Amino acid sequence: MSPKKVIIIGGGFGGLNAAKGLARANHEVVLIDKTNHHLFQPLLYQVASAVLSPSDIAAPIREVLSHQKNTTVFMGNVVKIDKKARKVHLQNGDVMDYDYLIVGVGARHSYFGRKEWEKHAPGIKTIPDALQIRETILTSFEKAERCDSISQAQKFLNFVIIGGGPTGVEVAGAIAEIAHKTMLQNFRRIDTTKTKVYLVEGSPSILPVYPQKLSNKAQQYLEGLGVQVLTGKMVSDITEEGVGIGDRFIESENVIWAAGNQASPLLKTLKVELDRQGRCKVEADLSVPGYPEVFVIGDASHCKGKTDQPVPSLAPAAVQMGRYVARIIKKETPLEKRRPFYYVDKGTMATIGKAKAIGMFGHIRFSGYPAWLAWCFVHIMYLIGFRNRFLVVLEWTFSYMSNHRGSRLIHSSIEKLLSKSNQEKPPK
Amino acid sequence: MSPKKVIIIGGGFGGLNAAKGLARANHEVVLIDKTNHHLFQPLLYQVASAVLSPSDIAAPIREVLSHQKNTTVFMGNVVKIDKKARKVHLQNGDVMDYDYLIVGVGARHSYFGRKEWEKHAPGIKTIPDALQIRETILTSFEKAERCDSISQAQKFLNFVIIGGGPTGVEVAGAIAEIAHKTMLQNFRRIDTTKTKVYLVEGSPSILPVYPQKLSNKAQQYLEGLGVQVLTGKMVSDITEEGVGIGDRFIESENVIWAAGNQASPLLKTLKVELDRQGRCKVEADLSVPGYPEVFVIGDASHCKGKTDQPVPSLAPAAVQMGRYVARIIKKETPLEKRRPFYYVDKGTMATIGKAKAIGMFGHIRFSGYPAWLAWCFVHIMYLIGFRNRFLVVLEWTFSYMSNHRGSRLIHSSIEKLLSKSNQEKPPK
Repeated sequence: MSPKKVIIIGGGFGGLNAAKGLARANHEVVLIDKTNHHLFQPLLYQVASAVLSPSDIAAPIREVLSHQKNTTVFMGNVVKIDKKARKVHLQNGDVMDYDYLIVGVGARHSYFGRKEWEKHAPGIKTIPDALQIRETILTSFEKAERCDSISQAQKFLNFVIIGGGPTGVEVAGAIAEIAHKTMLQNFRRIDTTKTKVYLVEGSPSILPVYPQKLSNKAQQYLEGLGVQVLTGKMVSDITEEGVGIGDRFIESENVIWAAGNQASPLLKTLKVELDRQGRCKVEADLSVPGYPEVFVIGDASHCKGKTDQPVPSLAPAAVQMGRYVARIIKKETPLEKRRPFYYVDKGTMATIGKAKAIGMFGHIRFSGYPAWLAWCFVHIMYLIGFRNRFLVVLEWTFSYMSNHRGSRLIHSSIEKLLSKSNQEKPPK
Repeated sequence: MSPKKVIIIGGGFGGLNAAKGLARANHEVVLIDKTNHHLFQPLLYQVASAVLSPSDIAAPIREVLSHQKNTTVFMGNVVKIDKKARKVHLQNGDVMDYDYLIVGVGARHSYFGRKEWEKHAPGIKTIPDALQIRETILTSFEKAERCDSISQAQKFLNFVIIGGGPTGVEVAGAIAEIAHKTMLQNFRRIDTTKTKVYLVEGSPSILPVYPQKLSNKAQQYLEGLGVQVLTGKMVSDITEEGVGIGDRFIESENVIWAAGNQASPLLKTLKVELDRQGRCKVEADLSVPGYPEVFVIGDASHCKGKTDQPVPSLAPAAVQMGRYVARIIKKETPLEKRRPFYYVDKGTMATIGKAKAIGMFGHIRFSGYPAWLAWCFVHIMYLIGFRNRFLVVLEWTFSYMSNHRGSRLIHSSIEKLLSKSNQEKPPK
């Protein structure tokens, strides 16, 4: 069996675990990612809410793979996959051949056709996203402090999160905590308890994939933190002034998008059938129909599990897919001998503020403090690298004990922020 | 004694310590800073060299002052001081009155009249500066990895630091370490030991304020780390291709400016005599001539010490000035009763890579490992906040033991970096 060339596109949960699974394979492995780091996305909202720093939850990919002598890491952007010629094309003109290809390019946000909303309502998928949101949140409090009356300040103290899935719930809880606990003593002129946090969800309840009892519990926790949960409501418009929800308009500078995912547009160049979210419909072995050497994994992949439902777009699923595909490639298992991919559901959880969470594992439901501890534990274990685990535990301990947030930095100076927003105020 | 209104411009070492000194004063205190954080500038080069995160060395000012009920913090940019009317004008049009004014606005870099050099050779004064440099350094290694030959890669592996003072020396040592230790296993195609680091200084020796023996020692340490020290050399030009030094031209994408300071341009509006670096010439009590209620402290201040030399622009000096002025204002000591400011020299130190430093305290000179330990200790003690001290000790321990750097993140994706540099490469 001669060594083959394996290209992995994407250093997220899927791609990175595929690469690690090929550490001892007799192949040449090349991993290409648009950034230089593996990002622990489930905790990215904590960078946005100023609890963690970016480097607490990201690890340089080449550092993680530095001991794998058969693996080279490139920072590059793949713009086209030519499955017939077995080549990938990069943005800067480079072209690379492959014998095996693993596509783990993940997903971005979908704005349901209203692309113009994106600049007013950023999502949280990358570090720049999270830092942008953090800056907006912290700057809003600063701007509110400069206002002469609460009515002027209110639009800086309104936060609207669109999307009642786990990300939206977690962000809403985190912002409510910043306002009502962390910032309480820090401001003299504004009353940060006047902060209003809205969570908007189109379905009849938040966390629609969870059982009703757990969704209700989550809503209860959120309302306890001061979040106004608006279910069964669709967003009609988003402008720089705020958000239209049905007939109502909420003035806000802080609108965060946590609804709707769309798989990376690179997948279109695969010329394979895609589902409604743009994910590739793959075979039971995660390969592209007719091309057993090309695999699509993680959030980019639409793969039927043992039931009719596709495997969910979750980090543990991406990890399992990455390892599965690595095993096939390592042994070069021919198509007819490959066992189908089987997703082992290790449960899902969502946290709501400090010390509360909900979770389910098979038929087991849990909530409250035990769920939160489980949530913390699982996230720590999935983090890459001892250093990151240690730092995150530290930051969480600090944050839990003191109600302070460690990373409340606005990087930009006010000159830069003012030139961005061209704000004028009358002299007083 | 009725309460007075004290405005402090700048939340650096001077301004923040002045504010803390007024915690129990019977006055209303307002601190205005362009950013929302106090920055521990002496360690900023470690953010640039990917050892520390920004939030390890910065603390939100309003957090630090949150227990002082008499103190309000604003994020704002003061553009004019009207000392006759006793008012300060902000960029957004606000105007504030004061009874006492403390100006601690610090310094920026001076490019000796060649402002166009700044975009090719950034300095390290703010967090965005440091992150920009970090991104450039790490991206250079990534670009070098993509080159087909070492000759193509070399310009990405050349680093030029201009200015042989403590900052320049510390940065040069840090970059040499990244290249020759940290990155060693991480790259497959390039040999990071081919990295060339140049430190350029116009004077006959680096660290010109230190005694010759210590400067020589520092140079020896740097050369041991692989740094080429070019003394008695002036920079003739800086372009996007690299740096002209006398007749020589060094191709480089990584040019860092660590030479020459210039006090903030706000001081011109004080209409007071300035020195060559733009610092205000103040009286012995740090007040502006003729205006005993206006004080200028820190790097913005030119104050004669007990000798003819002005008090140096160092963090400990700024701290002492801040506390001194706070004592005067707290008691409202009239001009004729004020004792002159006296700077207590607690020594200076500079570190060169891991486990080496030089320092002097009065007539005592020291170098090597003991100097480095002293350097670490002093910096930890001056950091604001337990959390920051703890994290920095942790990061240093981690970095020291493993030769890894904790914060090797390039935030931007390659798409963004490519659109910035418009780079094209032929297909291979």
